[in-house]
Amino acid sequence: MQKNRPLKAQFAEECHAIILAGGSGTRLWPLSRNLLPKQLLVLDGEQTLLQQSVARVLELFDPEKIWVVTNDEHVFEVRKQIAEICPNMETQVLSEPVGRNTLPAIMLGLDKVVEANPRAQAAIFPSDHLIGNCQAWGEDIVQASCLAAEKLFVTFGVKPRTPETGYGYITLGKKICDDAFAVDGFVEKPGLEKAEAFLREGSHFWNSGMFLFRAKDFLTQVAKFQPDLWDWWMERDQTSLVQGYRELPNISVDYGVVEKIDNIAVVRAQFDWDDLGSWEALYRIGEKDQNGNVIQGDVLAMDCHNSLLISEGGKLAVVGVENMIMVQTRDATLSCPMEHVQSVRDVVATLKAEGSRLVESHPTVVRPWGSYSVLEEGPHYKIKRIQVNPGARLSSQMHHHRSEHWVVVDGTAEVEVDEKPVILVENQSIDIPKASQHRLANPGKVPLNIIEIQSGPYLEEDDIVRFDDVYGRVQK
Amino acid sequence: MQKNRPLKAQFAEECHAIILAGGSGTRLWPLSRNLLPKQLLVLDGEQTLLQQSVARVLELFDPEKIWVVTNDEHVFEVRKQIAEICPNMETQVLSEPVGRNTLPAIMLGLDKVVEANPRAQAAIFPSDHLIGNCQAWGEDIVQASCLAAEKLFVTFGVKPRTPETGYGYITLGKKICDDAFAVDGFVEKPGLEKAEAFLREGSHFWNSGMFLFRAKDFLTQVAKFQPDLWDWWMERDQTSLVQGYRELPNISVDYGVVEKIDNIAVVRAQFDWDDLGSWEALYRIGEKDQNGNVIQGDVLAMDCHNSLLISEGGKLAVVGVENMIMVQTRDATLSCPMEHVQSVRDVVATLKAEGSRLVESHPTVVRPWGSYSVLEEGPHYKIKRIQVNPGARLSSQMHHHRSEHWVVVDGTAEVEVDEKPVILVENQSIDIPKASQHRLANPGKVPLNIIEIQSGPYLEEDDIVRFDDVYGRVQK
Repeated sequence: MQKNRPLKAQFAEECHAIILAGGSGTRLWPLSRNLLPKQLLVLDGEQTLLQQSVARVLELFDPEKIWVVTNDEHVFEVRKQIAEICPNMETQVLSEPVGRNTLPAIMLGLDKVVEANPRAQAAIFPSDHLIGNCQAWGEDIVQASCLAAEKLFVTFGVKPRTPETGYGYITLGKKICDDAFAVDGFVEKPGLEKAEAFLREGSHFWNSGMFLFRAKDFLTQVAKFQPDLWDWWMERDQTSLVQGYRELPNISVDYGVVEKIDNIAVVRAQFDWDDLGSWEALYRIGEKDQNGNVIQGDVLAMDCHNSLLISEGGKLAVVGVENMIMVQTRDATLSCPMEHVQSVRDVVATLKAEGSRLVESHPTVVRPWGSYSVLEEGPHYKIKRIQVNPGARLSSQMHHHRSEHWVVVDGTAEVEVDEKPVILVENQSIDIPKASQHRLANPGKVPLNIIEIQSGPYLEEDDIVRFDDVYGRVQK
Repeated sequence: MQKNRPLKAQFAEECHAIILAGGSGTRLWPLSRNLLPKQLLVLDGEQTLLQQSVARVLELFDPEKIWVVTNDEHVFEVRKQIAEICPNMETQVLSEPVGRNTLPAIMLGLDKVVEANPRAQAAIFPSDHLIGNCQAWGEDIVQASCLAAEKLFVTFGVKPRTPETGYGYITLGKKICDDAFAVDGFVEKPGLEKAEAFLREGSHFWNSGMFLFRAKDFLTQVAKFQPDLWDWWMERDQTSLVQGYRELPNISVDYGVVEKIDNIAVVRAQFDWDDLGSWEALYRIGEKDQNGNVIQGDVLAMDCHNSLLISEGGKLAVVGVENMIMVQTRDATLSCPMEHVQSVRDVVATLKAEGSRLVESHPTVVRPWGSYSVLEEGPHYKIKRIQVNPGARLSSQMHHHRSEHWVVVDGTAEVEVDEKPVILVENQSIDIPKASQHRLANPGKVPLNIIEIQSGPYLEEDDIVRFDDVYGRVQK
């Protein structure tokens, strides 16, 4: 590598980045929920993992060569988070109508890549991992680009630090150059004995989930191993790519392509990597106090050691525990010993089976125009705080079964009820009778906060008829 | 004892009951708070400890011979709870202007007792203990009454089950009859070694905090050992008893009188007794599931054993713990191993030192007319849900620094703003401008729920000018 040129000028061929931001894991429940998964959370420092990923990729790629693939449920939040670190990337965010795992998501991104340059390379990045030493990361990407130029499909391997049984492993083949090897195979979630042998023998790397390849080489493999997916993709125009999406199989890039091909290389990661796949990982990377605790939020810890104590809602007072995980939000608390951390999935599965809302969403739900929180529910009333972003506008809508009453507590509201417009300021209010057509907007420069009191026999979110919507959510 | 007569007819002399309900302990924090102490909580079954106490005493005493002493902060809640089990006892509830420990509280009650009958006996009952086997309890009281008729001051002793170091102990003297002994002395909170010896030797009983004596015998001792208190009491008329109260010393009946006199007897309790002085006690008396857990509320427990898991607010998901206490309310969670249960006092002390509201009150605060909950607070707004009991009426009031907006979500409201009356039903609302005189009442037969949105630069409870108040809270 030529050290004096900026890294991004050292790509072997034109290279685009595809950031995968559609995941919906709940291993960090109750902080992560289906509607606010890990990549959209601030877990370390001040940026969300997605923002960290985009910021890192922007060091190496021009914004117009970065494609972020997410799904309809997260697209507004993803756009908002990215806008905070780089304006004008809105059109770089692609949305799946529904999550279908990594292979279809990558195909959505590759559509844009080959449209720009059919000979370009593509680098695939998860958005929910933590990466340290970005300079080394950039150098590894550039090295991979050189290997991809030789028609290799490049993976990035992390030298194991522990005998992890939950990871995918890459079996090393013969050395290609200093920090790259041919790949002899993949082992998914080995048993402990195997994992210990891998660690001891140095024969395997962890699979970081990042890939780099020439787009057309990859597509050739898709055509060969996934002919249905290939057909769908080849018949695409923007509409049909999205429309056929729901019928696609749920299939990962590893299972669908990578594990089936043979000209694969692995670059040994020089960067630090953590998949933050559990609360234990979050404890590991967190800043410890003198008792070895990682503490965030409104926590009172007395005589506690080596524990992860987080509160995002209410006081959490903990006495005399060791190696514990306690995570509290406004509507749920998780408590388990560090060695039981994998049981979080059982908790989530149980809640899901009970039909609990707690798996799906936070008390505060993000919407394209802002957010709302349910403050209280009674037998036939519901109280919400609604925050509308400056300049944003909710859909024009109507409810069959409820009347609403809005009170402005902060900012200025532009309200229309049955086509009569009115401006409301702090402490002013308005009645929205049942079956009237209404709309709410924030014409101001600061967030608008209103309290909505709903009243009626049926108060679910699906009693809503949308007439027009700047966010394209009108029912057909 | 004559077994065929009802127990209450077997008192040796006329006997009154004084129930002490003014305590404000926080050993069961975060369930108990200063404004809602242990005796006012439902901890076992469906009645609060106070209600259980009153119901038990009503089996043995006529309502007009039962005096409940509490303080101004709790008096409305105490009256409300008692009304639920026995109407027309309102005038039996006596209120201290401020808590001054048990001796002044007993003197308030004795004022009523000697007014009714200067020769009557008085039985003193804490309201925050759990008593099982009420028939045996009644028999013990009647036996004590016989001893008191012999001028003895009678205590009730519980045979120790464990070497408790936090209790007061009674040293047994010579036997008076089958189940009664002379008392040779008292030992407060012995060390573990001493407590183990007491248990082994059977030489001591736990002091249950119940007493029975002839009022005039007791008052003679007060005159002798607490001359200042005696002076205050002798100069009493209803006004001066209350007015001098703030200047009284904080003094317990044990320290101020009982430990100084010598003609004391102890009746060995035939009833079951628990002071519920800690979460560990609550675990002990609770109904266990097959894993030995005591679980209340919205709890998901997986692979947990011998733990106390309570949630009154939000989901509490707990995995793989043993011998743990976890108690969650809407605004605070406590977590500590069973053996650290005494540390709750340190938690509370720390919160108090921080000036935390969490020691003082729950998010829902009980008022004479109903209750209110703060749903959300912002920089210059506050949202409350206010519940007004049927027929109740808030004071006529005015605020200098805030305007208010009321929305009825349930029931019917009678509102007066600047002397203009208006009736509001569900989903109707009204603005209360700053500095206007206003009042709220519930003229209906069901609870009235309104949402109050306050808005202004200063939103504390002390910005309130009361003009008249059916509960006597007008400022002088």
